[in-house]
Amino acid sequence: MKLLRVGPVGAERPALLDRDGILRDLSGLVADVDGALLADDSALSRVRAAAQAGSLPVLDPEGLRIGAPLSRIGKIVGIGLNYFGHAAEIGAEPPAEPILFLKAADTVVGPDDTVLIPRGSVKTDWEAELGVVIGSTARYLESAEEGLAHVAGYVLVNDVSEREFQIERGGTWDKGKNCETFTPVGPWLATADEIPDPQALDVRLWVNGELRQDGSTADQIFPVGEVVHYLSRFMTLHPGDVVITGTPGGVAMGQPEPKPYLRAGDVVELEIDGLGRQRQEFKSA
Amino acid sequence: MKLLRVGPVGAERPALLDRDGILRDLSGLVADVDGALLADDSALSRVRAAAQAGSLPVLDPEGLRIGAPLSRIGKIVGIGLNYFGHAAEIGAEPPAEPILFLKAADTVVGPDDTVLIPRGSVKTDWEAELGVVIGSTARYLESAEEGLAHVAGYVLVNDVSEREFQIERGGTWDKGKNCETFTPVGPWLATADEIPDPQALDVRLWVNGELRQDGSTADQIFPVGEVVHYLSRFMTLHPGDVVITGTPGGVAMGQPEPKPYLRAGDVVELEIDGLGRQRQEFKSA
Repeated sequence: MKLLRVGPVGAERPALLDRDGILRDLSGLVADVDGALLADDSALSRVRAAAQAGSLPVLDPEGLRIGAPLSRIGKIVGIGLNYFGHAAEIGAEPPAEPILFLKAADTVVGPDDTVLIPRGSVKTDWEAELGVVIGSTARYLESAEEGLAHVAGYVLVNDVSEREFQIERGGTWDKGKNCETFTPVGPWLATADEIPDPQALDVRLWVNGELRQDGSTADQIFPVGEVVHYLSRFMTLHPGDVVITGTPGGVAMGQPEPKPYLRAGDVVELEIDGLGRQRQEFKSA
Repeated sequence: MKLLRVGPVGAERPALLDRDGILRDLSGLVADVDGALLADDSALSRVRAAAQAGSLPVLDPEGLRIGAPLSRIGKIVGIGLNYFGHAAEIGAEPPAEPILFLKAADTVVGPDDTVLIPRGSVKTDWEAELGVVIGSTARYLESAEEGLAHVAGYVLVNDVSEREFQIERGGTWDKGKNCETFTPVGPWLATADEIPDPQALDVRLWVNGELRQDGSTADQIFPVGEVVHYLSRFMTLHPGDVVITGTPGGVAMGQPEPKPYLRAGDVVELEIDGLGRQRQEFKSA
């Protein structure tokens, strides 16, 4: 299933995009799309049955804003340098074990919302990423298979990053990862059954129409199940947490000088197979 | 005022410790102690009036668990190496600007709850810290004075840290800061009027009765107002966010070999002037 949240900022309602591409209102059936829903198999079964029966009210998508497809995100865990191509382009060795950082949930916006370039920023960059949504509590897992079994679904994420803040200001990467609006998510959350192999997804990103990232999750150093398994040794993952699994080559930081960092007026579009497409206009904060 | 949340895990009720040290039930007056309450001056005024009138129901503290004094924490921002004494003990230069990292809100426990030493940990360490609770949205502030004006109150925090995970595993500090139960908070949230000078607070921590940290917030490299001002350039702080402002010298990592990292059965106690006292027994996860 493709689960969404549509409507004005802060007043989104749950929705579903059915197999015929028709948007359906879920608000009569579930309170929201969040970790509680994803952890509730019987609620998900009811949604699935209603979708198959075609009994959900149709929503007119015209002029309807699409929000991030997940409410009440607990934490967002980022995996750094997780594609061979991205590590190579910035001259880094592939890491021996996953590098992690955190993004606060308050940085999340909808897939087509405006992204703000922070004041004083000169190195705002893009990162198209496969986001993994946790469906059940993951703690000291034993294997990558167990890791994959705790995944409820997948989302498309732009892990917007300010490289000067992230790398040149002392301390951890978090300083360049948590600016407001820096985490567009969506348009939909695809339940795990829709993505039979998360390691075979094409990932593409364009800036002002020019293709900048064109990779595949096949290039991931640590695949999805292994990432979840690894993380569960250092933190407990809860339903509704999101793990963003790194970006392929092609970010601005990896280009020759002058590097094409984002400026007000730039338009970024991105997509992953089966997870839809985003489009953000960048503006000054 | 001293605001608390008391009761079983997940079923805490709001409470107040009045000037005579009597615990009072706030659940008839406010829904919870959280960012929404802190941002609501009229609600806070009602609580203050009721406390002064002595009209709030008395609670029997006997056997009553004290939870973390703040619900629905958005994000926890940590400031690293923010005391001259702590930087010196680990051989680091005082940073030129604040170092930041993030702790997820799901790591928070009550002040006297059990803390779990992660499986495989050999370097679990303590950090007594002054926690700053944000009361109004802080974004691109102009000065340290403005920073201080956005502080609703203060809490005592033990920023438990696993040094091997934090420093020796590649990547950011977050890997050693986000293990489950790693952020005891409380016992109470002291509103800002109770702490006339946040840079004149003694901070103490004992392990198994032995005094290990005995510092003062006067030793902070970046004082509270400056920290909030600085952070607001890189992220938006929201009501109910918590900034933990670093730890004075005396952590296990700063000791001569063999460093006294925590083991199952150890008891850590800590206090800050005006913010009460915590006591945690450490157990194996």
